[in-house]
Amino acid sequence: MTIASWGSRILDPDRGVEEETARILDGKTKPLGSLGRLETMAARLAAIHRRVDFETHPRAVVVMAADHGVARRGVSAYPPEVTPQMVMNFAHGGAAINVLARQMDARTVIVDMGVAGRNDWPPNVLRRALGPGTDDLAAGPAMSKETAEQAIEVGAAIADELVHDGCRLVATGEMGIGNTTAAAALTAVFTGLPAAEVTGRGTGLDDAALARKVEVIDGALALHRASSTEPVATLARLGGFEIAGLVGVILGAAAGGIPVVLDGFIAGAAALVAVAIAPAVRGYLFAGHRSAEAGHRRALEALGLEPILDLGLRLGEGTGAVLALPILDATPRILREMASFESAGVSGKVK
Amino acid sequence: MTIASWGSRILDPDRGVEEETARILDGKTKPLGSLGRLETMAARLAAIHRRVDFETHPRAVVVMAADHGVARRGVSAYPPEVTPQMVMNFAHGGAAINVLARQMDARTVIVDMGVAGRNDWPPNVLRRALGPGTDDLAAGPAMSKETAEQAIEVGAAIADELVHDGCRLVATGEMGIGNTTAAAALTAVFTGLPAAEVTGRGTGLDDAALARKVEVIDGALALHRASSTEPVATLARLGGFEIAGLVGVILGAAAGGIPVVLDGFIAGAAALVAVAIAPAVRGYLFAGHRSAEAGHRRALEALGLEPILDLGLRLGEGTGAVLALPILDATPRILREMASFESAGVSGKVK
Repeated sequence: MTIASWGSRILDPDRGVEEETARILDGKTKPLGSLGRLETMAARLAAIHRRVDFETHPRAVVVMAADHGVARRGVSAYPPEVTPQMVMNFAHGGAAINVLARQMDARTVIVDMGVAGRNDWPPNVLRRALGPGTDDLAAGPAMSKETAEQAIEVGAAIADELVHDGCRLVATGEMGIGNTTAAAALTAVFTGLPAAEVTGRGTGLDDAALARKVEVIDGALALHRASSTEPVATLARLGGFEIAGLVGVILGAAAGGIPVVLDGFIAGAAALVAVAIAPAVRGYLFAGHRSAEAGHRRALEALGLEPILDLGLRLGEGTGAVLALPILDATPRILREMASFESAGVSGKVK
Repeated sequence: MTIASWGSRILDPDRGVEEETARILDGKTKPLGSLGRLETMAARLAAIHRRVDFETHPRAVVVMAADHGVARRGVSAYPPEVTPQMVMNFAHGGAAINVLARQMDARTVIVDMGVAGRNDWPPNVLRRALGPGTDDLAAGPAMSKETAEQAIEVGAAIADELVHDGCRLVATGEMGIGNTTAAAALTAVFTGLPAAEVTGRGTGLDDAALARKVEVIDGALALHRASSTEPVATLARLGGFEIAGLVGVILGAAAGGIPVVLDGFIAGAAALVAVAIAPAVRGYLFAGHRSAEAGHRRALEALGLEPILDLGLRLGEGTGAVLALPILDATPRILREMASFESAGVSGKVK
């Protein structure tokens, strides 16, 4: 399928089901609206699934990894070899995302989208490498437009397969030393904000290194003069293989009619690109959390998303998305299991 | 035991264990501090349990219910008969707290602390009624000081029994038509703020009814001239049986060395009283969420607590506390299951 066809398959969530869900919640034994955002999330999830009796299980977190040419410019506090080392850690189940995905009963799908220096992965790592990392986005395009399209296809196909396997929800995760630089550059383009306002310390830069990172991104923005109206070309110039892959996961999940729970800053950049490609995607997005990374707040504002959690996480991998899943899981249970005023014989409001 | 002796049994959490936990987290395969507040919560929980390998299971939510004389003044959008109706709903498992407690694997302990007009409860409701609801706090003391002490004893004994049954954590819940009025009056005394700043719409008052509620509370504050330095006397004058019971649950849990996860506004008022009785309680408290009820924000500020969730809930029953439990559950898992840089062969920071 082409990218345009993934976009054209995305239906608007069902407003009728959304309203029906809200009505059912109004009949439950609680003051009107007193479950706050749980109620609006319940209605949104029902509208996406086009049925009031939806489920949030089974589900998967897709963790895409890739390396970044721009990492050679010292924009990260960690060396590039950490990318393959962490992919091996994911494969062996020892990373934070593995721990949280086990707790929340989510399948972890690990994808090598283009990790440098290694490909001897165990069988639980999907081999979808598009090269040994991107080129340096501060010197030229990170990848060709064709490669960006290919990465989107890979992500969309993975989401499509998950939908066909019965997944009712997908969370996004990623790993890639240098990827907050690519994400900041994309966020700058798609929010229209200057680099300094959307660039953060990533894995823990000091002040001097942060200033250098902003300079690198400013240089890249000046070099590419990328536009938010040409999202795939911009993604190719400033993105990463894993970011492009996540754009595909988001498009594929929305096309398959299941909600997408975004993690933090990298996922936010991917979502900005996905929404620019296909605005209908927006109705399928949930923000698992607000990252401590500067710029994520601005991305969420641009996406019109209120995060579920705000715990100062800045780890990535999908941790902030998966940690939010029990909150979403509460919504079908409330719809199914709570008594109504009528069934429980509880009096309504005075007057 | 006397109230003073519950207070004197409360140890400060173990700072050595807290530091050891932080050191262990620093060795895990993630950028330093990148799990944000999960890391500080892990260290606090370990310090409370006095061991790094602590557990958050098994646990219970104690839901205390009582009626309020002040409810006759039209301070609630729902009629007083809803209190016994909802207790029956709790007993039958159909309320929001039942649904969420099942999801989060918490035992629900339902306690009649003084519900009016009914006592034919099924066996899963603990019968601890101190009378058919409090007297009208706007006309005189809600209860005698002796009754307040008795209610605290009841709550502390319940917490003590839970600790002896092996509970590693307790969450607080409540039900009582009119209890946001009592909680607002207590919050005003213990924060030193005027009634208008800590009084909210409760179950859904309109503007006129809210103004009347503030007037009722202002009148009660003028009548009693209660002081934060005499917490039990103030609790007797302005509180409720279930609020006094929760003060006891908080004191008893802290004395038993287990963390307390507070729900919203009512729990916040109980915590303010408990901290005034025994300041060491503070080290045992977690705020499950920030309620949409005006005044809860101010209570949390006074308690020095940052809420785990902020989802606009204003239902009570313990829902906001129980909903936050999976976040706390993540912390012992991360400590136990995450690989270290050393064990996973992952490189550390550059330099």
